[in-house]
Amino acid sequence: MIPSLLPMPLRGIVPPLVTPLLDDQHLDLPSLDRIVSHLLNGGVHGLFILGTTGECTSLSYAIRRELITHVCRLVDGRVPVLVGITDTAPEESVTLTDHAKACGAAAVVAAPPYYFGLSQPELVSYFEKLADRLSLPLFLYNMPSHTKTMISVDTVKVLANHPNIVGFKDSSANASYFNALLYTFRDQPDFALFVGPEEMMAAAVLMGAHGGVSGGANMFPNLYVSLYQAAKDHDMEKVLVLQEKVMEVSAKIYSLGTYGSSYLKGLKAALSVLGLCKNHLAAPHTAFEEGEVQAIRTNLESITGL
Amino acid sequence: MIPSLLPMPLRGIVPPLVTPLLDDQHLDLPSLDRIVSHLLNGGVHGLFILGTTGECTSLSYAIRRELITHVCRLVDGRVPVLVGITDTAPEESVTLTDHAKACGAAAVVAAPPYYFGLSQPELVSYFEKLADRLSLPLFLYNMPSHTKTMISVDTVKVLANHPNIVGFKDSSANASYFNALLYTFRDQPDFALFVGPEEMMAAAVLMGAHGGVSGGANMFPNLYVSLYQAAKDHDMEKVLVLQEKVMEVSAKIYSLGTYGSSYLKGLKAALSVLGLCKNHLAAPHTAFEEGEVQAIRTNLESITGL
Amino acid sequence: MIPSLLPMPLRGIVPPLVTPLLDDQHLDLPSLDRIVSHLLNGGVHGLFILGTTGECTSLSYAIRRELITHVCRLVDGRVPVLVGITDTAPEESVTLTDHAKACGAAAVVAAPPYYFGLSQPELVSYFEKLADRLSLPLFLYNMPSHTKTMISVDTVKVLANHPNIVGFKDSSANASYFNALLYTFRDQPDFALFVGPEEMMAAAVLMGAHGGVSGGANMFPNLYVSLYQAAKDHDMEKVLVLQEKVMEVSAKIYSLGTYGSSYLKGLKAALSVLGLCKNHLAAPHTAFEEGEVQAIRTNLESITGL
Amino acid sequence: MIPSLLPMPLRGIVPPLVTPLLDDQHLDLPSLDRIVSHLLNGGVHGLFILGTTGECTSLSYAIRRELITHVCRLVDGRVPVLVGITDTAPEESVTLTDHAKACGAAAVVAAPPYYFGLSQPELVSYFEKLADRLSLPLFLYNMPSHTKTMISVDTVKVLANHPNIVGFKDSSANASYFNALLYTFRDQPDFALFVGPEEMMAAAVLMGAHGGVSGGANMFPNLYVSLYQAAKDHDMEKVLVLQEKVMEVSAKIYSLGTYGSSYLKGLKAALSVLGLCKNHLAAPHTAFEEGEVQAIRTNLESITGL
Repeated sequence: MIPSLLPMPLRGIVPPLVTPLLDDQHLDLPSLDRIVSHLLNGGVHGLFILGTTGECTSLSYAIRRELITHVCRLVDGRVPVLVGITDTAPEESVTLTDHAKACGAAAVVAAPPYYFGLSQPELVSYFEKLADRLSLPLFLYNMPSHTKTMISVDTVKVLANHPNIVGFKDSSANASYFNALLYTFRDQPDFALFVGPEEMMAAAVLMGAHGGVSGGANMFPNLYVSLYQAAKDHDMEKVLVLQEKVMEVSAKIYSLGTYGSSYLKGLKAALSVLGLCKNHLAAPHTAFEEGEVQAIRTNLESITGL
Repeated sequence: MIPSLLPMPLRGIVPPLVTPLLDDQHLDLPSLDRIVSHLLNGGVHGLFILGTTGECTSLSYAIRRELITHVCRLVDGRVPVLVGITDTAPEESVTLTDHAKACGAAAVVAAPPYYFGLSQPELVSYFEKLADRLSLPLFLYNMPSHTKTMISVDTVKVLANHPNIVGFKDSSANASYFNALLYTFRDQPDFALFVGPEEMMAAAVLMGAHGGVSGGANMFPNLYVSLYQAAKDHDMEKVLVLQEKVMEVSAKIYSLGTYGSSYLKGLKAALSVLGLCKNHLAAPHTAFEEGEVQAIRTNLESITGL
Repeated sequence: MIPSLLPMPLRGIVPPLVTPLLDDQHLDLPSLDRIVSHLLNGGVHGLFILGTTGECTSLSYAIRRELITHVCRLVDGRVPVLVGITDTAPEESVTLTDHAKACGAAAVVAAPPYYFGLSQPELVSYFEKLADRLSLPLFLYNMPSHTKTMISVDTVKVLANHPNIVGFKDSSANASYFNALLYTFRDQPDFALFVGPEEMMAAAVLMGAHGGVSGGANMFPNLYVSLYQAAKDHDMEKVLVLQEKVMEVSAKIYSLGTYGSSYLKGLKAALSVLGLCKNHLAAPHTAFEEGEVQAIRTNLESITGL
Repeated sequence: MIPSLLPMPLRGIVPPLVTPLLDDQHLDLPSLDRIVSHLLNGGVHGLFILGTTGECTSLSYAIRRELITHVCRLVDGRVPVLVGITDTAPEESVTLTDHAKACGAAAVVAAPPYYFGLSQPELVSYFEKLADRLSLPLFLYNMPSHTKTMISVDTVKVLANHPNIVGFKDSSANASYFNALLYTFRDQPDFALFVGPEEMMAAAVLMGAHGGVSGGANMFPNLYVSLYQAAKDHDMEKVLVLQEKVMEVSAKIYSLGTYGSSYLKGLKAALSVLGLCKNHLAAPHTAFEEGEVQAIRTNLESITGL
């Protein structure tokens, strides 16, 4: 359990790890081992556990703690481990961070509390007090579709002055907003700016982002790592070839049916087809049924050159 | 710790108890004792703890458990105690219910999980599986401004068939919706229909609702109990006199400033002015400052005849 | 074309008249004659044309003008005619009002402009300038689901001071909000407060509202007039009997399918079954197909005692 | 009045022309002449009049027609003129299109009707019937913040089969969505894909978009034309230099105050400072007051190298 180190700024592909489950109450440890190896072998630059893709809010605190313990043990300091501590009760965020630190995690990630929607001054106050109490560096996480609140550019700017707030992950998919962040922080290159939706990762990196929290990297880590590198190198020819692949994954794996959770369902079904973990989603979500899993299998096979 | 009994259906005023706090991590037990006595002396028909007014989601699980223990002990079976178990992780709801049952609570109350917005079929599946596992009867709780999801009338109708689902609390403030519920359940008088916003409680009871979860009853329990009784008796003259008082409370206590949390801030400030508890709100909220507390004091004094 | 007079305040049932159409470009004048007679014979206290139920925004300005002309001619001063002038371009509202005045209408009704969502100060400024220019008295119209903006209680309070703003129609269905309006205007009995959704009309009138803009009155004017009268008289026994009928209409006619426009589709289909007009909705809406019309017919027949 | 020709696909910077006004009822024709010359001299590839930036929905139909007449006359066939016909009443869209065609416009642009929010099947039906009736080619316009409806990728795909629908403008700012469109239409290079928000124009063009409808081009046409060209040429070094300039404009001109209409207010104030038109916004909007105009002046002067 070697503590993982946090580069300043963090850069690259830091996938939001899915949480492999036997059922709602039990982690699937062999699958966890398999997926972590798969990702590290694929060249990812860090791991983000207990995010939206990791079904964090659906998991009991006991499982959350267990997951942190095992991932840190498996990674063993090879890449930084970031731990999602998003919560409505700050006390629970603090406690989980202490556990993450003891396990060797490098940083934590928190979206706004998601029961009450907060105003911008309330967000500033909330995150400043939280960062004061945390034993690990904090990444802010903008996720307005789930938290009802957009963290404004001005709020991020203020919070970035806190010595314990080191970066930002944006999952709003709003490119005007993200470019405004890049512009605002153009003279603070140590404040890490990551983008969530993988469909816009290449464009974001071309324009100056430090990296992406790309869910598809659970399946095909090397695709996202290569695309990140091509964008960083301004190799547009390569970017356009790989971007088409990323969009094909998005269209064929995440867009089945009209569920709000098509992304989660499709990703875990695909991982089960790839033999990486079971096709189980924690309640309140339910996994795809056999017919849909078969469709995912067919779609996966039609994606060539991965 | 006498177990409290649940009438079928529950009727009357069941206030959402505020949670008196010394600070974010400590209950204020003397104030809790004072408030519970104040409410029971005021004639309320039950207590609902760990609701939105009780700042449930802001509290650590340790405090939630402690609060359940103490309220059940203080009430000692005199009225039914309902316990909020709204959570994003079903496992935590189940565990908290077991604790509530052990303490002598009568029922639990759950809004939809509030990180992911769920579709209606997902809500049916979620609540059916949850009710199967709960050791106490369940009230559904509609709170779309916080959970992003309106529980449709058809969904309530389906869920009401579950033997362990015994009632419904609606905090949408949508009167068309609430009247549709009253019509839908006109031949199922045992399924309890409660309304959250106190401003519409009298009208709801006039049209057939079983009662109200009126936050103002923390301050003036008798006002809401009397208004409920007048509405139940179709005593319109009395209803209109008391309704004006309830609206005066709403206008003068809950509407200070333009905060999304003006209700919470105003209610706790007023309770502090009344000597019932400290003016402390758990993070992410902050209590009114001294100037605003003074305004609440002045407003309180201007409400005559309470 | 006798000018219709506006009582201060207006009271009673003022149905939002459907617009009978031969096709998207042509009014169905015989049906218009039939429906106006049907409503006046049913005892309604006024007519509101070119509202949401009247499909105002879907109609060309030529048809809007034609409709005003004919309704005013048909009504011939027997009840006040209110004309919807909601628009995004104030100039068009002013022009339409001048036409309405020339035809003998009693007042106009305007919701906020509905392309840009406005702030409260912008609403105040917009309505004050508009009312200055209008040749007829103005009712404000709160319709947040379509205009993206809730007209706040404070904004209504300010606007009610304008000599040419005489009342308010609320279609938010939010009963806390509507009761706050009733409380705010308790000492200004001449400012008319009307409620849109018919499911909450009786409760609103019980609590002090002046009347309802009840769409179902296009089908069964006497039902809504009788319910209004019973509520005004505080005759709760009669209220509860008639309210159940109103809710039966709502459940059986407005709730077919999962369309956002189920209300419009159901209402016009029912009117066609009743022989009052053709089953045609102007684009962008489409009328129910034959199978759904048959279901409406069956549902209509199952509503007894109308 | 030479008819302007529409390239297939249209490419480049097609600014959404502001509408210069003397007051709410009168166009400012000298300023219109000046701005059109300014833009054509700046190298823009087309003009889009009567869009959101052009305050279309605030203008009377008389002014809309007048504007079309004059812009087509001034442009005189040098670049294609696109005319916004977004309306809630299809009849008005058709009539305006006939006028635009008579004046020599090249195409029209329509967002969904914006009073009722439509479902996807309703959008398909609406746009197909509209396109059938229009005398000019149609660009679809996605503007969910104003129309309450996102035109889904699948809906665009279906509608692109209509022979009279030739392109799409997206103002959602959602980069995942826009990249999904680029992927979906990768084999239909004649279907024009334009992006609204100028902050994401360069990234969109890098990934394959045909161009941008950049409001800032009203001020600095050459900046946006140069950035478009650099992105099209994959000249990342130049892109990053010019993108920073574009973001500086956005930060300093569009972000003053917390108005929903800060963009409109700032743009017109800046144009007045630049001597291109008066600082007048049509109701329901109001222009910046003198203090804010002065701040815009100072900010403009601080943007160097334009």
